[in-house]
Amino acid sequence: MLLHAQPLSKESFSPYGDVIEIDGANHFPINAGKIERYHDLARVELDAAQEGRVLISIVKCNEPSRLPYRVEVVERHCLGSQAFIPLKPAQMVVVVGPAVESVQADQMKAFVSNGKQGINYRRGVWHMPLIAFGEDQQFLVVDRGGGEDCEEIRFKDVDLIVDCESQARSAKEF
Amino acid sequence: MLLHAQPLSKESFSPYGDVIEIDGANHFPINAGKIERYHDLARVELDAAQEGRVLISIVKCNEPSRLPYRVEVVERHCLGSQAFIPLKPAQMVVVVGPAVESVQADQMKAFVSNGKQGINYRRGVWHMPLIAFGEDQQFLVVDRGGGEDCEEIRFKDVDLIVDCESQARSAKEF
Repeated sequence: MLLHAQPLSKESFSPYGDVIEIDGANHFPINAGKIERYHDLARVELDAAQEGRVLISIVKCNEPSRLPYRVEVVERHCLGSQAFIPLKPAQMVVVVGPAVESVQADQMKAFVSNGKQGINYRRGVWHMPLIAFGEDQQFLVVDRGGGEDCEEIRFKDVDLIVDCESQARSAKEF
Repeated sequence: MLLHAQPLSKESFSPYGDVIEIDGANHFPINAGKIERYHDLARVELDAAQEGRVLISIVKCNEPSRLPYRVEVVERHCLGSQAFIPLKPAQMVVVVGPAVESVQADQMKAFVSNGKQGINYRRGVWHMPLIAFGEDQQFLVVDRGGGEDCEEIRFKDVDLIVDCESQARSAKEF
């Protein structure tokens, strides 16, 4: 089964979470007008009853991926949202599915970012574990810490392949 | 009064908050080893009793600043921490003071980042409002939303000037 990545936009991604970008965002000047604030771009979710807390971490690519890419496993976190924002412009390809109990391969959708966008997965949304295309590409991560919170589903009987019209580009090409 | 910015490091900045960087951080592989996670780099503080929540925002430079720079005002947020992470490598100059009731100009210290570091101000720490040196420079912000939480002090009787041995550099030069 071949999944074609469609352009990532706030509208197209809204069933799965937020697109973190300044385009189209509510904004206002701060610091005597020197700085513009694009405000509240993602809903950070945390199940307070579970005694979690919000973490800021960085992830770095050890092994660049290439398209077309075979999605062998998807995962989800039911106690908190999870945001990834590139620390240098770089396109991301994400594969997501609805927050149902046992997602099927044919429910998954793929998106490709414009290189400047970050994404925030809503709590419970299935997603392909992060892949990156650039050597040493880094992303800031805002997610939940405080105990295990990861479910996985392996697609054993189906080849789920994600591809994109143009090879996703790393920061070097921006 | 002239403040010379010293190199930003986890140790030197520890009275004021966190340096968000992968150097020296606890890390481990995830996603079948494709990705390395540098984990829990900053303490996100939130005064839960105040019904705040954690926000993800982006700020963008409207008007680049130059060094030496006159610090006319400092501010602090007592209900939550505030993190700034450059979305393209760019040096930051920050001026900070201890979390006391009424900070004095001669208690302030200045730091200059290496271009890849982000910073997280601890709750109640006085700081110069963000300045940036590059046209359109952007920073991811992780801070608290939910009602006013900003105190200001104006240094009226003292010229507090911050400078750095080398002009802080924008992303273009990295």
